[in-house]
Amino acid sequence: MAEQIWKTSISKASSEGTTIRGYNLEELTKKLSFTETIYLTLKGELPTSKQTKMLDAIFVSSIDHGIEVSSVTVARSTMAAGNQFNSSVAAGVGTLGKYHGGAIEDCAKFLEQNLDNNIKEVVKQSIENKKRIGVFGHKMYKVDPRTQTLFEIAKQNNIYGKYCKLAEEIETQLEEQKGKKLCINIDGAIAALILDLGFDSTLANAFFIISRPVGLCAHVHEEKTTEKPVRRLSESEYIGKENRKL
Amino acid sequence: MAEQIWKTSISKASSEGTTIRGYNLEELTKKLSFTETIYLTLKGELPTSKQTKMLDAIFVSSIDHGIEVSSVTVARSTMAAGNQFNSSVAAGVGTLGKYHGGAIEDCAKFLEQNLDNNIKEVVKQSIENKKRIGVFGHKMYKVDPRTQTLFEIAKQNNIYGKYCKLAEEIETQLEEQKGKKLCINIDGAIAALILDLGFDSTLANAFFIISRPVGLCAHVHEEKTTEKPVRRLSESEYIGKENRKL
Amino acid sequence: MAEQIWKTSISKASSEGTTIRGYNLEELTKKLSFTETIYLTLKGELPTSKQTKMLDAIFVSSIDHGIEVSSVTVARSTMAAGNQFNSSVAAGVGTLGKYHGGAIEDCAKFLEQNLDNNIKEVVKQSIENKKRIGVFGHKMYKVDPRTQTLFEIAKQNNIYGKYCKLAEEIETQLEEQKGKKLCINIDGAIAALILDLGFDSTLANAFFIISRPVGLCAHVHEEKTTEKPVRRLSESEYIGKENRKL
Amino acid sequence: MAEQIWKTSISKASSEGTTIRGYNLEELTKKLSFTETIYLTLKGELPTSKQTKMLDAIFVSSIDHGIEVSSVTVARSTMAAGNQFNSSVAAGVGTLGKYHGGAIEDCAKFLEQNLDNNIKEVVKQSIENKKRIGVFGHKMYKVDPRTQTLFEIAKQNNIYGKYCKLAEEIETQLEEQKGKKLCINIDGAIAALILDLGFDSTLANAFFIISRPVGLCAHVHEEKTTEKPVRRLSESEYIGKENRKL
Repeated sequence: MAEQIWKTSISKASSEGTTIRGYNLEELTKKLSFTETIYLTLKGELPTSKQTKMLDAIFVSSIDHGIEVSSVTVARSTMAAGNQFNSSVAAGVGTLGKYHGGAIEDCAKFLEQNLDNNIKEVVKQSIENKKRIGVFGHKMYKVDPRTQTLFEIAKQNNIYGKYCKLAEEIETQLEEQKGKKLCINIDGAIAALILDLGFDSTLANAFFIISRPVGLCAHVHEEKTTEKPVRRLSESEYIGKENRKL
Repeated sequence: MAEQIWKTSISKASSEGTTIRGYNLEELTKKLSFTETIYLTLKGELPTSKQTKMLDAIFVSSIDHGIEVSSVTVARSTMAAGNQFNSSVAAGVGTLGKYHGGAIEDCAKFLEQNLDNNIKEVVKQSIENKKRIGVFGHKMYKVDPRTQTLFEIAKQNNIYGKYCKLAEEIETQLEEQKGKKLCINIDGAIAALILDLGFDSTLANAFFIISRPVGLCAHVHEEKTTEKPVRRLSESEYIGKENRKL
Repeated sequence: MAEQIWKTSISKASSEGTTIRGYNLEELTKKLSFTETIYLTLKGELPTSKQTKMLDAIFVSSIDHGIEVSSVTVARSTMAAGNQFNSSVAAGVGTLGKYHGGAIEDCAKFLEQNLDNNIKEVVKQSIENKKRIGVFGHKMYKVDPRTQTLFEIAKQNNIYGKYCKLAEEIETQLEEQKGKKLCINIDGAIAALILDLGFDSTLANAFFIISRPVGLCAHVHEEKTTEKPVRRLSESEYIGKENRKL
Repeated sequence: MAEQIWKTSISKASSEGTTIRGYNLEELTKKLSFTETIYLTLKGELPTSKQTKMLDAIFVSSIDHGIEVSSVTVARSTMAAGNQFNSSVAAGVGTLGKYHGGAIEDCAKFLEQNLDNNIKEVVKQSIENKKRIGVFGHKMYKVDPRTQTLFEIAKQNNIYGKYCKLAEEIETQLEEQKGKKLCINIDGAIAALILDLGFDSTLANAFFIISRPVGLCAHVHEEKTTEKPVRRLSESEYIGKENRKL
């Protein structure tokens, strides 16, 4: 059974004001950017300007990817059915599972576990066991342009470190051993980057979850102001039992 | 029944890359901050540096307010019961209703509707009808320090305009007519500010919903890494029917 | 601020066992049906066999209406994106807003408010004010077969009372004054029936919310066991700004 | 990418009416109970009266267990913060994770996998590997009275079969080898029962998810009609960084 008193080291709110990680919220509001304060809230310490640039890039790259992805379908369908703005965005966030932005933690753990392993061997065994490495491959792209952009920014800002390097080594090995390019996808790139930024792998899914509500808010607002209720599939196929009597 | 083809003017994603409001996502990732890209995604155009500063301040002021608020209790309880990271944050976002950050749209509409009205009369009638004006008053604060900070930044950056002025005029009238200070609370302040930034009142709730997931992610992560399952109330009182037999 | 001790008159759980509305859960499990126990949990007292029959009919009529409705799209999309079973069903329940099963409470309140009014006048004014009465009309049906079935069962079991009668009187008046049949839809029928069963209008949305998770569970399970990740719209139209440069 | 046309074998809805698993919904509404129709919807075929009795008992046993469990805290907190009825119940359903009613599928899979294994050996290895078997043990109970009741009903109705037997054999072995009673808990009991009823283990979590919304609706309604906004923790402890300056 849980303890009676809930404990936190993140923030403190009282009639004397709020502090985040020990800093007064008013002071933060005056002096820091949103991205700097996100870093502080998650990490407990202030970022350098290079870390801020890297984090900005990660968030911008994840902000929205069109109307066809299921988190947007879900969020807009929820709004169209007569639900609140926050409930509709929440539904979108609730869609961000393992196959839609929610694999970053597993990618990060895979990189952590194999940091000191022989990459050739890791890749060989993964091919033999037909165990796909989630960090690699994308349906749409041979080379994921978002990964290229993020790694370029990482190099410019001295964030590119052992985890980014590891990801690229695996990519090379995969191509050599499979004879086929399987690019580091955006999930893999963010996993490597946040590890090189010094974040814990247990926090890895947070970054996409912080960025994507922006796109979801825009879509929910567009649905609310330009569409009529209710969304329905326009077509479907029934493949079950024929009509019968009780 | 909804049309077959879903339409959007927010973003476009294809194998040739993604654009947000017409701008290439790779270019945005390289050149803009998260806050600038949020403005672009929601508004359709790029912000000035003063608008960016104002938006940063709004987001920072809303990022987290301690562990005791119900969105945090809900998000952490969801994680503690064995649910995914995204599902737990979504539960927190789903809590942000009318009485917890979700009144900003109503505040914005109230300000819009009364922009050209006689304030003295508006306040008089609201007092006579005992209809509380949601923009004003806070349980903890006589003067909401967050409002003061945000309005100060608004003045420094020439964002402070007719809606902020209106909010302060109502505050003055309320004090005169009620003989009691009812401060502009943070919901009222954000409402006035986003109107003066030129955003539509229908989008007003988005700003808190974009910022608060940061705090929720930090709390869900803290729950996941430092607490054991399951959260339960430690005490309750049963006030129903006594034991009886079928 | 909320009180420290949460109070309830619904149930009590301790190491000595659980009671619902004063009855021992083991005894209920042995002797009552699910529907009888639902009635007890919601109402506080045991149902007659006629009330149970009526409630069974309401639940059965709401259990599932095909794959095309948005709660199913949402629930199945959530599962397909790699989320838990309970999270996917929750997403479906979160879709049941004002335009998808969530208007029953408003219907019930409309009936309550007009119980003693002149129906001719109510309908006349609603037509003049172009205020649609939510209880009436359905896109698919001229006569909603579900309403007919439920009212037939209500008559057979002496549940059909003043609220069902009121709903039918309004239907008749609407046809007379508009020269067009606007049938009592399923939302209106359930609203009238639960009022005639003696439930409070504030509880009216619960009945659909209790029944529909059954269909949602079946759909989420079908998605999980027969489909591959991830659902996406197969087509969309971008109607926004053309490509442009920063 | 998903196929354009969504397929289902559960139900069909058109202007000619709705069928569930081939049966006309109007006919089902007239002739079947809620529990019988649940069985049909999930299984595809009609239940016998003994199967219906068993299913009724499973649902009744799961309907509500007091206000202190986290799904209730979450659902009521969501309502108290100003959200819709359906959104609040959805939040409760979203809480039903691995440590709160969501372990039944894992229990069922464990039973399936060990049906033909040497139980003595399975238990021995689980003790050696310190791998807790989720089906067994409960914080509150030495013997879970709900399990006893459900197994008694299972025996009376000839549902008690190889999976219930297996669960009891493991319980006996656990006691012999550990020298300590670890009772079959309610999750384990439901897992064994639904397998003996012939349901697939992949559907195992559905049964709790179908029943518990009843209790959640009662609690959300109680919150809505008897409490004021907003729920907050009444106390907390900040264990983070001391006040500091930027």
